[in-house]
Amino acid sequence: MSQHRHPGAPGRAGAVPTLPDLPEATVARLPEYLRALHNLADAGHETVSSEGLSAAAGVNSAKLRKDLSHLGSYGTRGVGYDVTLLIEQIEYVLGLTQRRAVALVGVGNLGHALAGYDGFAGRGFRIAALLDADPSRVGEEINGLVVRHVDELPAVAVQESIAIGVIATPAAAAQRVADQLVAVGVTSILNFAPCVLSVPEGVDVRKVDLAIELQILSFHEHRKASLTALPGGLAATETQEAIGT
Amino acid sequence: MSQHRHPGAPGRAGAVPTLPDLPEATVARLPEYLRALHNLADAGHETVSSEGLSAAAGVNSAKLRKDLSHLGSYGTRGVGYDVTLLIEQIEYVLGLTQRRAVALVGVGNLGHALAGYDGFAGRGFRIAALLDADPSRVGEEINGLVVRHVDELPAVAVQESIAIGVIATPAAAAQRVADQLVAVGVTSILNFAPCVLSVPEGVDVRKVDLAIELQILSFHEHRKASLTALPGGLAATETQEAIGT
Repeated sequence: MSQHRHPGAPGRAGAVPTLPDLPEATVARLPEYLRALHNLADAGHETVSSEGLSAAAGVNSAKLRKDLSHLGSYGTRGVGYDVTLLIEQIEYVLGLTQRRAVALVGVGNLGHALAGYDGFAGRGFRIAALLDADPSRVGEEINGLVVRHVDELPAVAVQESIAIGVIATPAAAAQRVADQLVAVGVTSILNFAPCVLSVPEGVDVRKVDLAIELQILSFHEHRKASLTALPGGLAATETQEAIGT
Repeated sequence: MSQHRHPGAPGRAGAVPTLPDLPEATVARLPEYLRALHNLADAGHETVSSEGLSAAAGVNSAKLRKDLSHLGSYGTRGVGYDVTLLIEQIEYVLGLTQRRAVALVGVGNLGHALAGYDGFAGRGFRIAALLDADPSRVGEEINGLVVRHVDELPAVAVQESIAIGVIATPAAAAQRVADQLVAVGVTSILNFAPCVLSVPEGVDVRKVDLAIELQILSFHEHRKASLTALPGGLAATETQEAIGT
């Protein structure tokens, strides 16, 4: 029932640290809680109720309590969660107590923007290397880093202790880059290229596909339109026009 | 049991189009199937087995069959799915049979890259307007579009029939922009700002937070490291160093 499970908890001396195998949806929400908690801490709050935290994180409070119970955090009745302690716990579980080095491959339009994105540094990451296959881009300086040729990846990965690879190449080049990242021992990849990567067991890939996000919204637009349509009315017309035969 | 449920199916004449309320995870996978199907069509395939499609989309085949069954698509035993028909069905469900107009608010580093991203056009979307609150950016031309002041949003939304708003502003400005989008009738928002938006019922918000994707990968890195650690070995040391107290 302690809110403080991992770090220096009574009885943990000599124990193997056991990281819970959390549901993927819980893992995806922990960063939201973390950001909300940092905002609360910045505003001087020392404790927060589950309702307060759930509102700040945009998650319903029953879900939040369940998520945090996976970490062994139950808060204190009438007081809530200790903000600093919960930040420490979540940062521990997310492995953010060390700053991870990121290699970004592909500095085209999107990669260029990512290289200059200042939202990573404050949240546990350091863009440590920029690489590109295009010789005309090699040598370019972006945000204080010089673009290197992707063939230098093996050397760069060792020098910079790269933990995470970000792929921002065109789709046609992405699999080859993924293979190169895996070959140099990178086991976590964030893929912005609109394609499915094939990687060996033990390599985690997260994908961000901007068009897919829009397509999901499109579904909801379409569904909202169909719900407000009158029988035989506008939406039916739209269907016929849109699909034809 | 027909693969062809919505468009012009026998008996649908005069029926109200009923869009199934699909599980959110299914909605998120439909664009993956669609992309894989387009690739198959481009390569000249007329049919595809569920195994073939699931491999191309990077989704397991039982999940794929279940997802498609929500659309009333069961394929044909021994033949599989008709590629063209399934593309039509998914595009219909996702509302991609009309090209939706997107307004992008915030043309800083990331917004600039999004404005120039050519991955939207082929997938059902048209960036129809760029807006920014910074007067020094207004008038700038990006990819053939002139940046307009965000105060022009009401006029732009009507002129361009904006269906989806994309927010790429700093976190501090995002809620105000969301309010402005909602005020002009936009009910679908893609938010790149690292913050939670509060919107009325009936407005859908999808969020892309690049640092959160890295934090999720960090969890998996951390967990992989803890699984390979020996009892009392490196990982335990890491824990103590990392957390202290």
